[in-house]
Amino acid sequence: MTRTVLESKSKTVVIGFDEPFCVIGERINPTGRKKLAAELEAGDFSTVEKDALEQVACGAMVLDVNAGVVYNSNPNPNETEPPLMTSMIRLVQGLVDVPLCIDSSVPNALKAGLEAAEGRPLLNSVTGEEDRLELVLPLVKKYNVPVVAISNDDTGISEDPDIRFEVAKKIVRRAADFGIPAHDIVVDPLVMPVGAMATAGRQVFALVKRLREELGVNTTCGASNISFGLPNRHGINAAFLPMAIGAGMTSAIMNPVRQVEMEAIRAANFLMSHDPNGGEWIRFAKVLEAVEGGMSFAEASSSQSGAASGRRGGRRARG
Amino acid sequence: MTRTVLESKSKTVVIGFDEPFCVIGERINPTGRKKLAAELEAGDFSTVEKDALEQVACGAMVLDVNAGVVYNSNPNPNETEPPLMTSMIRLVQGLVDVPLCIDSSVPNALKAGLEAAEGRPLLNSVTGEEDRLELVLPLVKKYNVPVVAISNDDTGISEDPDIRFEVAKKIVRRAADFGIPAHDIVVDPLVMPVGAMATAGRQVFALVKRLREELGVNTTCGASNISFGLPNRHGINAAFLPMAIGAGMTSAIMNPVRQVEMEAIRAANFLMSHDPNGGEWIRFAKVLEAVEGGMSFAEASSSQSGAASGRRGGRRARG
Repeated sequence: MTRTVLESKSKTVVIGFDEPFCVIGERINPTGRKKLAAELEAGDFSTVEKDALEQVACGAMVLDVNAGVVYNSNPNPNETEPPLMTSMIRLVQGLVDVPLCIDSSVPNALKAGLEAAEGRPLLNSVTGEEDRLELVLPLVKKYNVPVVAISNDDTGISEDPDIRFEVAKKIVRRAADFGIPAHDIVVDPLVMPVGAMATAGRQVFALVKRLREELGVNTTCGASNISFGLPNRHGINAAFLPMAIGAGMTSAIMNPVRQVEMEAIRAANFLMSHDPNGGEWIRFAKVLEAVEGGMSFAEASSSQSGAASGRRGGRRARG
Repeated sequence: MTRTVLESKSKTVVIGFDEPFCVIGERINPTGRKKLAAELEAGDFSTVEKDALEQVACGAMVLDVNAGVVYNSNPNPNETEPPLMTSMIRLVQGLVDVPLCIDSSVPNALKAGLEAAEGRPLLNSVTGEEDRLELVLPLVKKYNVPVVAISNDDTGISEDPDIRFEVAKKIVRRAADFGIPAHDIVVDPLVMPVGAMATAGRQVFALVKRLREELGVNTTCGASNISFGLPNRHGINAAFLPMAIGAGMTSAIMNPVRQVEMEAIRAANFLMSHDPNGGEWIRFAKVLEAVEGGMSFAEASSSQSGAASGRRGGRRARG
């Protein structure tokens, strides 16, 4: 059974075929968040702090940290991203004790993140593009960390799932050349919007099954892509996640502060026999009761979880 | 591709591997509904009328009709059920133009239902019990209707999914002896409560896949069983249904007046590529908007569907 082991300072989280679905919180990312980008440029980290605490309270087991901000004062990410990544990682791991996912397309930012992170973070990401393979895989090997492998290559993102499978296979093979085992590669098969491509859901379910059975790798995705452009997106996401979990997907990079999606994942864990006595479900039902009573989902989750200490992430990690 | 064809007076509904999930409305059933039982004994059919209209408005494609009431005045169902079944079926098919599912454990009530029903109803049900096979399969053959086959036998309901599979296989074989094709058998693999048996979900998903691949049959279930005894049952049901659909389940006997479950099914249809342009999803999003505006789900569905005429069931059936 494939197990990808992540660590924070003192906690272990396993992404695995026989583990509860791993929720990787996506919110610490200034891409498309102008207000956050401006704050970061001004040295204000209050939103990052809030996002770290809330996401862990709501059930994130890993936090993605992306420092991809374009400063007004300096538009060169090669200069701005590495030091910002260092600051953000230090800040976040001072607040919550969950493994981090170091997210950048700037190699020096990945390196800065790897230097700053305690434990065993997840590197996000490598693709099948030649220059990315040559730049990122040596870092993966040197720091002995797992990596997210996105199944596009120099020809772009194929709409043909067989080609995306072949790209994933190539990355796994190339990683093996570096001595990186398949269980340290978490493949993102790329989720297309079902509003643009009617077969998008079926494609992913079939791909996840193949990646698991033929390559023996864990999988992840940007879950909300599936509902891009559609009304009532949460409803699509909340069906997609259980279906992907049923097909064998083992993690997602997503917004854990969304109650509907988290409810779907908790229920799917239970139905996959990854919440054996339903203890997590029953606890979550109490959170929902508190939401009905007027609390926000984040507040209700915090009140149930003692989140500021990162206790939930830890308990789940040991589960 | 397996297709089980059902008909009302003028509409066709296909349960099939390449069809939208078939929602069989469960509400016209006095079992456990004392008020309804008392009404029926008093000759008051107003709840049946309401249940028929509401369920079709909310998206039921087939209506289950069960006359299993125990009268205070006459406790013998062999005497009371057949004429009540006749009355209820006549009433319901006068109100809505969707195929019916004739639901009884009393053979003469099944016969009465078959005589009264227009089109091609679904018979509910046969089991692997010898006396049931001998009583029900000749009716299935004589009236040329499809039948729900429940995978228990004279030894009861096995907790072992392999045994439940073998029971289903036996029913399919025995039906073949009567000249009944596998595509006219809709197997209910029996859903256990996940609160009582941690593997209940996985069992069903695996069973559905085997039933589909090895026996080539459509499947159904009493979907809400999965969440029996648990808090926030809708949350479990709303993850279970998409996961079961992803595993290949093609219908369920359920309460279509529940918004959360119907939303999950609409989303799953979309994700299985059974709502190609998302037209059904977009229409459903408008129903949800109306619910947010203060309408009940049934009212909002009616206002979108022109339900009194049974128009939605028909349109979907032709889709």
